[in-house]
Amino acid sequence: MEKFFYPGSIAVFGVSDTPSNLARIIVENLVRFGFRGDIHPVGVSGGVVAGRRVLRNIEEVRDVPELAVMLIPARYVPGTLEACGRKGIRRVILESGGFGELSDDRASLENEVCSIAGRYGMKLIGPNCFGVVNVEAGVVLPFFIINQAYVKQGSASLISQSGGVFYDTCMFCSVENVGLRKLVSIGNKLMTDENDILEYVLLDPGTVVAGLYLESFSDGRRFMGLAASTEKPVVVLKANRSEASGEIAKFHTTALAGDDDVADAAMRQAGVVRVTNFLEMVDCFKIFSLPVLEGRRLALISRSGGHGVICADAAHRYGFEFAKFSEGFMQTVMEKKLKVIAATNPLDIGDVYDLDEYGTILDAALAEEGVDGVVFVVTYSSESDGTKIREFIRHAARVTPECGKPVALCVVTNRGEWFAIKDAADFPVFTDVDQALKTLSWSYEHHLGRVKRRSASGKAGAVQSFPGIGRKTEDRRFMEPEECFSLLSRYGLPVAGHHVAKDREEALAAAARLGYPVALKTGDGSVLHKSETAGVFTGIGGPEGLARALDAISAHRYLVQKMAPAGYEIIIGGRLDREFGPVIVCGLGGIYVEVVADRSIRVAPVDDAAAAEMIGQLKGHAILKGARGKTPADIAALKDVIVKVSHLLMENPGVVNLDINPVIVHEEGRGCTIVDVKMEIAEMIDN
Amino acid sequence: MEKFFYPGSIAVFGVSDTPSNLARIIVENLVRFGFRGDIHPVGVSGGVVAGRRVLRNIEEVRDVPELAVMLIPARYVPGTLEACGRKGIRRVILESGGFGELSDDRASLENEVCSIAGRYGMKLIGPNCFGVVNVEAGVVLPFFIINQAYVKQGSASLISQSGGVFYDTCMFCSVENVGLRKLVSIGNKLMTDENDILEYVLLDPGTVVAGLYLESFSDGRRFMGLAASTEKPVVVLKANRSEASGEIAKFHTTALAGDDDVADAAMRQAGVVRVTNFLEMVDCFKIFSLPVLEGRRLALISRSGGHGVICADAAHRYGFEFAKFSEGFMQTVMEKKLKVIAATNPLDIGDVYDLDEYGTILDAALAEEGVDGVVFVVTYSSESDGTKIREFIRHAARVTPECGKPVALCVVTNRGEWFAIKDAADFPVFTDVDQALKTLSWSYEHHLGRVKRRSASGKAGAVQSFPGIGRKTEDRRFMEPEECFSLLSRYGLPVAGHHVAKDREEALAAAARLGYPVALKTGDGSVLHKSETAGVFTGIGGPEGLARALDAISAHRYLVQKMAPAGYEIIIGGRLDREFGPVIVCGLGGIYVEVVADRSIRVAPVDDAAAAEMIGQLKGHAILKGARGKTPADIAALKDVIVKVSHLLMENPGVVNLDINPVIVHEEGRGCTIVDVKMEIAEMIDN
Repeated sequence: MEKFFYPGSIAVFGVSDTPSNLARIIVENLVRFGFRGDIHPVGVSGGVVAGRRVLRNIEEVRDVPELAVMLIPARYVPGTLEACGRKGIRRVILESGGFGELSDDRASLENEVCSIAGRYGMKLIGPNCFGVVNVEAGVVLPFFIINQAYVKQGSASLISQSGGVFYDTCMFCSVENVGLRKLVSIGNKLMTDENDILEYVLLDPGTVVAGLYLESFSDGRRFMGLAASTEKPVVVLKANRSEASGEIAKFHTTALAGDDDVADAAMRQAGVVRVTNFLEMVDCFKIFSLPVLEGRRLALISRSGGHGVICADAAHRYGFEFAKFSEGFMQTVMEKKLKVIAATNPLDIGDVYDLDEYGTILDAALAEEGVDGVVFVVTYSSESDGTKIREFIRHAARVTPECGKPVALCVVTNRGEWFAIKDAADFPVFTDVDQALKTLSWSYEHHLGRVKRRSASGKAGAVQSFPGIGRKTEDRRFMEPEECFSLLSRYGLPVAGHHVAKDREEALAAAARLGYPVALKTGDGSVLHKSETAGVFTGIGGPEGLARALDAISAHRYLVQKMAPAGYEIIIGGRLDREFGPVIVCGLGGIYVEVVADRSIRVAPVDDAAAAEMIGQLKGHAILKGARGKTPADIAALKDVIVKVSHLLMENPGVVNLDINPVIVHEEGRGCTIVDVKMEIAEMIDN
Repeated sequence: MEKFFYPGSIAVFGVSDTPSNLARIIVENLVRFGFRGDIHPVGVSGGVVAGRRVLRNIEEVRDVPELAVMLIPARYVPGTLEACGRKGIRRVILESGGFGELSDDRASLENEVCSIAGRYGMKLIGPNCFGVVNVEAGVVLPFFIINQAYVKQGSASLISQSGGVFYDTCMFCSVENVGLRKLVSIGNKLMTDENDILEYVLLDPGTVVAGLYLESFSDGRRFMGLAASTEKPVVVLKANRSEASGEIAKFHTTALAGDDDVADAAMRQAGVVRVTNFLEMVDCFKIFSLPVLEGRRLALISRSGGHGVICADAAHRYGFEFAKFSEGFMQTVMEKKLKVIAATNPLDIGDVYDLDEYGTILDAALAEEGVDGVVFVVTYSSESDGTKIREFIRHAARVTPECGKPVALCVVTNRGEWFAIKDAADFPVFTDVDQALKTLSWSYEHHLGRVKRRSASGKAGAVQSFPGIGRKTEDRRFMEPEECFSLLSRYGLPVAGHHVAKDREEALAAAARLGYPVALKTGDGSVLHKSETAGVFTGIGGPEGLARALDAISAHRYLVQKMAPAGYEIIIGGRLDREFGPVIVCGLGGIYVEVVADRSIRVAPVDDAAAAEMIGQLKGHAILKGARGKTPADIAALKDVIVKVSHLLMENPGVVNLDINPVIVHEEGRGCTIVDVKMEIAEMIDN
């Protein structure tokens, strides 16, 4: 991977000296950013670009370039790639479009590219991308003009599946004075995906935070493993949220856990910070350039009471606490204040007229033991306060790294001074309080995830590999009830006593053996919502009742089931996710299942602790614990069910969909009973 | 009100020629913005400011100034106000702090101010504020330096309870090239509140959108009436969301509808757009400078596929649809495209290299009948495309007003060009797609509210006045069960058959008359969560059971109640809100009430249509309609209950808290039964 970012020499294909030529911009960018190695422009029409002769053929280059960058029509790619291979080039960035993203029939072209690259042992990024930017080495490969003034070297690395978003982020980082480290536009991810790059940038010592714009996960489990194995924050803007399949949801699990819900749960599980737009991505780059927020107690300091109120609202919204200031701190502050405004947290320093004192107040707040981080809001008029506020920003930049606590500065001023405040120091400046506190909440979330991963070191990695993923599922079928129950029983799951009978006599005998009351259901598979069909009779008290029910039901086989005692209805589901493999869902059951959509989702495997977390996350948790004087439910038994279902899913990758609906959770100490189950399995085929 | 914005002459109190004096800035701002009337600086130390002699006394002014602005220590305010009154001044802006906002003991000072102003028939804005800005008339009264280059005249008016937020918004508007019309910082709202100003700016022909930053509503119903009576969008940033009272919630209604929930519902009801931070406020100023979005069908056009995906996500998120393009449109587009990217909606025009064609494509999209609005995303490099993109923005500015559809332009470029794109035209430019679509959703929401208000013209005004509000409530007490039921019955509410008996014999007789099964409860008031007490027996089948229950219960009086048939449990509550008066809440009842928090809230009165809306908004609506094969509930009867409770609340302002929990909603056609009710009343005292 290293040679993509630090190549000794680069050949650029598709260059001509016509003004509209795009590949020439690549050459010009390299020259502009002072790339020190050899640059070899290659193009069929020859000419001169940036003082370099355009070669007509790669053979004309004496040495073997360490990297080839191609921006040529798609149909010429295989030939050129072949020529590169023969020449001995082993790294290619294919920026051309016109592959799989244009139409499905271009898949064969993609296959050809893969096969040539494979034959020569080439690594390839793209196609349909902007390539790589590594300012440090002068490697600037996008085919749009990049002005050196607008790309500052820093510590945030970016991996983007879209060129447009890649470009936006670069530009907005320059607006916000955010320094960038390594940028990769990965395009169609034909041979190199986000995980390959992420693995590299997480090891890159200069990268402090990694941001990804993704429209799909190439291998969700590998991604989770990478994100969970690092101390560095990984920030993801995951687009393409709408469901891929319009398939009618035959399983509650599918309804309760859409593709995006699963991706969301997986990211949370791996400690990833998920953002919604690229402005938030840049905000993350800003906050993670500061020390991580390691507690919830904030000092909120502002120059106006209104900002204090807004600060307080935002602090509540994002779950922060107001730090309790010591008397010493209050004394320090009161000495500076005109005392026309009371001293509290949020602290209004609108009556501190000597702006030099802002630094002293900030220092005092950071020195407070009970303060984990500071939000400092300054609105000012450039005409009177510009110089002093810029000095204050530089002060904050000096003290923040030393104290190990983040300081979120929110500064608003007029347009003339706008970039002057951003540039006052190599230090992030936010505009709005709400935005700053949201961003701080991500810092704290990252801290919590990191602590959890440290204490469970090794465990998180368990998600990393899953043999079943990467295979295709075909020939799906519903399992027969008996098959389902027996698979569940094999994993020690508490299935209600039952028997599948082929006729009346067998049914009556089974009921006598199981003991009344019993339920009678159809023993045929593929019955979906049993409560919507007529084929279910519950609470049958004796043989007469059962005989009547047998008369009424129409079925080839009969499922006789011992009635479970009452309890709380919970649904537990599983499914094989395209991107993340086996996923487990638990939620509130009964009639409220779709209405309330109360559920928690995890990528399997789920251990005891994770299962407890899943239950704890349900809104219905209060009910299970025994709300309003009711007896608590057997939460331990429910946890055990979840863990066992997780084993079942991991060891049976053919299970595409699973609904246990409901599992009845009895009173504390009395266990659970699985009353109904539905399962869809598929044959697994290797890729 | 007019004279606050267009005074013929202004006296400024508190001016001196020392550099740190703040009142002199007011004088300088007036001069800088070319205020044409007379300016009279007044201050005890005399001197000269901005070429004007500082008078020591208002008596020295020959004429009577039409407006006085004061920035003097609080303790001198009464004397100066008195002098102004004697002089004949009738409009005062009191910018000084040090009143009620500093400490409660300053209330007497505020009373003194009110009494002096009242005596002279003065109108007063403030104290503790930045006053008024009306650039049109050169009236610029804040005591911080305002540079003319940074306040552009436009059509957005702002009313702010915080000086800091006032300042932020001004500055950020300049950054975003948003023009401002009338700005008022209202401070402590001693004599002039947000409603007084809002009434004025809504009538101001130049004001197209009104924004408010509020920490409290002075008279929530008057505000609702104003907002509901205008076609202009009213945007509110309401802070101070945390609950005022730490009182333990004895009523479900209080738990289900906190102060901020009520404010939120009231704003929604009045068609107000509520935003969360001042960046969103400025976004609203931007979107409402365009035609209002009158439908959900958007054309999404971008220069990159990634932006298209993000557009599509955001469109889903905010409830938009993708417009279906006509064949004619597709043809127009395909002629411009290099055809390396497929044509769909979202439309990727990354292969349209002639930027002059962007205008043509935009025109074609706007001309589509099936398109209600356009989102156009352009990311560009200033080096190559700057001139053309700025021309495109000017084009959009020309065509948008004509076609009556909004065009949300999202433009990202590098820092050097940042303000050039904002200034290309008097036309809003957004940065991020998600932000633009969120803002468009507010435009559409405003449209829907406007349509609703038009069709129900007159009705919305019904909320306007409420006699009970503005009074204080004291001496609260719980009503006895019998009192509660009889009040409910008086309003025609379907109370379960019941009798309060003083002894066993009376209870047994009552049960016989009501008919078994019955429930037995304590007949004493002040019992809160009945399901948590032992004083409730339900489903008593006959006299023997009742006798046993009477033995077991401990009560001074017994409530015997006929058991209601089964049904869906709904809670209906009411309360007297501090800011909005009588408020009605309905929600899912039973054990799920606190867990699910499924509820809808309205400021009373609630008519038939609004009651139907309230029920329709519940997540549990699907259950009531008969989810999963169950019989539908009697929604019409429930609606009727809500309307009647609303009457009860309106006519009995002493009802501070009301919980009907539950009302059991039976099967369609079988009505409702109110089983339990709890009410707290207070004596009403005039202000």
